Amino acid sequence: MKRVYLDHIAATPLDPRALEAMLPFLRERFGNPQSIHSFGRPAQEAVEEARAQVARLINASAEEIFFVSSGSEANNFALKGLALARRDKGRHLVLSAVEHQSVLHAAKSLERQGFKTTLVGVDREGLVDPERLAAAVTPETALVSVQLANNEVGTVEPVAEVARLCRPLSVPVHTDAVAAAGSIPVDVRALDVDALSLAGDQFYGPKGSAALYVRKGARLLPLIDGGIQEGGRRAGTENVAGIVGLGRAAALAAEELESRSVRAAALRDRLIDELPRRVEQVTLTGHRSRRLPHHASFCVAFVEGEAMLLNLDLKGFAVSSGSACTSRALKASHVLLAMGLDHALAQGSLVFSLIEGTAAGDIESLLDVFPPIVERLRALSPLYTQYLEEKGK
Amino acid sequence: MKRVYLDHIAATPLDPRALEAMLPFLRERFGNPQSIHSFGRPAQEAVEEARAQVARLINASAEEIFFVSSGSEANNFALKGLALARRDKGRHLVLSAVEHQSVLHAAKSLERQGFKTTLVGVDREGLVDPERLAAAVTPETALVSVQLANNEVGTVEPVAEVARLCRPLSVPVHTDAVAAAGSIPVDVRALDVDALSLAGDQFYGPKGSAALYVRKGARLLPLIDGGIQEGGRRAGTENVAGIVGLGRAAALAAEELESRSVRAAALRDRLIDELPRRVEQVTLTGHRSRRLPHHASFCVAFVEGEAMLLNLDLKGFAVSSGSACTSRALKASHVLLAMGLDHALAQGSLVFSLIEGTAAGDIESLLDVFPPIVERLRALSPLYTQYLEEKGK
Repeated sequence: MKRVYLDHIAATPLDPRALEAMLPFLRERFGNPQSIHSFGRPAQEAVEEARAQVARLINASAEEIFFVSSGSEANNFALKGLALARRDKGRHLVLSAVEHQSVLHAAKSLERQGFKTTLVGVDREGLVDPERLAAAVTPETALVSVQLANNEVGTVEPVAEVARLCRPLSVPVHTDAVAAAGSIPVDVRALDVDALSLAGDQFYGPKGSAALYVRKGARLLPLIDGGIQEGGRRAGTENVAGIVGLGRAAALAAEELESRSVRAAALRDRLIDELPRRVEQVTLTGHRSRRLPHHASFCVAFVEGEAMLLNLDLKGFAVSSGSACTSRALKASHVLLAMGLDHALAQGSLVFSLIEGTAAGDIESLLDVFPPIVERLRALSPLYTQYLEEKGK
Repeated sequence: MKRVYLDHIAATPLDPRALEAMLPFLRERFGNPQSIHSFGRPAQEAVEEARAQVARLINASAEEIFFVSSGSEANNFALKGLALARRDKGRHLVLSAVEHQSVLHAAKSLERQGFKTTLVGVDREGLVDPERLAAAVTPETALVSVQLANNEVGTVEPVAEVARLCRPLSVPVHTDAVAAAGSIPVDVRALDVDALSLAGDQFYGPKGSAALYVRKGARLLPLIDGGIQEGGRRAGTENVAGIVGLGRAAALAAEELESRSVRAAALRDRLIDELPRRVEQVTLTGHRSRRLPHHASFCVAFVEGEAMLLNLDLKGFAVSSGSACTSRALKASHVLLAMGLDHALAQGSLVFSLIEGTAAGDIESLLDVFPPIVERLRALSPLYTQYLEEKGK
């Protein structure tokens, strides 16, 4: 059976070219970048080259890039590091209600240190209203954090507009670009944000590789204290191979992003247009046009996402029903609930997220395989029977 | 020119067998362990196998192992996670004065949250006195942290004795075993500690791979909040390949530790015995017998460690003058100062730390190459000229 991987949001495969770049650092170039001798230098140079590559992807300066181990670490570093550096000025956070768990839970952890959080809601498409968000800022606000794109519904948020409105309020703005960076153009100057998180495993880099952009001059406390790595802001022996892979993946994304994106968007649109035609009571989640090019997400009424996922898996299709970071928790997504979907419908969520290798034929196979699965599962649902009866009247 | 790597404490090379185990997870097995579909399962199984392998190395249970990205993260996680979970009971820390920067600086960061730290000094060999340490514990003490072995001077600390004395005081004990684990036998039950840090790059695993052991039932707050990975205690997509490499390296260390250790200790002892014979005014630092098997460290009077290091590098020998985490900071080591060495002598520190590939011939070459280097450098030192004059009288 051919296996088709449509779970970009959980992790992308590692680009063989990125692996190629990593291998010397998993073999003979094993030095610690902090070592002053000749084993250290190639490692240090490679880390600095990767820093420049990541910087170029998002139009930052190399010295504004701090390597970390995951998007979640980047988000924790940003939230805690920026907020705690400013806590004497105030202990208030403004976040959108659809942020990733690593942002929301970092805020919860700050609440134990006296912070208060205002969660600003989103509309039916998952969009935050920049004016509402800016209106939530008070003189006590230490940080605003709004994601650039949502991994569960694909919506791309108006972060530049948020930053523009927050600038006169003198509050730093962080954006979680983990789902976005490497997939859509990201320019920290155009966005005018103070900090931005990204992760390699969302654009064909290795797992365990991620970075936080922090605007030069912004105050930020370390999350991991210790040695002088990363300018003293993030201690720990550098994951050289991971960083090199991240850098190479960033360089490749910068080069190929547009062609990848055009290709993915065509397949995505085919899914978005066709799936609701083939299966009734299927609703697109997230925004129709302001969305990630590889991302098609739906709620399917009368069926649980988990059940569809497992049945698709048996047919060779790997998809997800939400964020991988909470997938085993089996709770209705806070994102879908914040968008106003009712609890039952939110349980029927499914995300098809395309990767570079996705072929048009894969999407057609999926469109063939999916309707009978839903039909079979719905046959078990008393609510669906009731719906059919009412429809028949 | 043959290059000889004697900087184990900065980083070990990755064992090719560990790399072999990692490669499938850098290629076709790229799934996210949290994914419920068939791409996720092999990744999850591999992570759990690695957890068991790491647990076996230190006689822990698999569910007591939490994967992190570096020894520094493990230390920050332990210090902040254990201390903050108990802060309502008291805000006092007891540490040895020779802890790694990541322990000392994590404590400094806790001081900003109202914690106070008592640093307990060490003797001339770098040994802490367990009774003095236990005497520093008060009813306010939230955590005691004493390293298992020091990376700069190789001394192995009496952690089991520290834990034994702290047990009736109901204070949790953490040990930073980053320099020790995989090189000397480590048994968390025999040590009777509540938490223990280890890092793969100290025993031929990959950089970016490390773990914190936390005794079952111990309360610990996350350092990285977010998803449900690592039992909700450490969010972030798992670095699967890194974790697999760490697991394999742990399994290999468990098997081969004794033979590696016997072999390294013989070469180490040759250096410790012979170097002071060949060069006058060379002192062993750290304890003569209670030390890491691969570790020979010295202070060389009238010369700076940095200068010796660079000259040895030109001859093909990679060594270090202290901790890689601070090597570029060029400050006298806090460890040597705590041991009572004067500032000038501490500047002349040099660490030769052997790896598996170190041959007897490498050590003999080093013993030949080293004296003329020291002689040449000392010729530039007015203090040495003065010493010679006084000696001649």
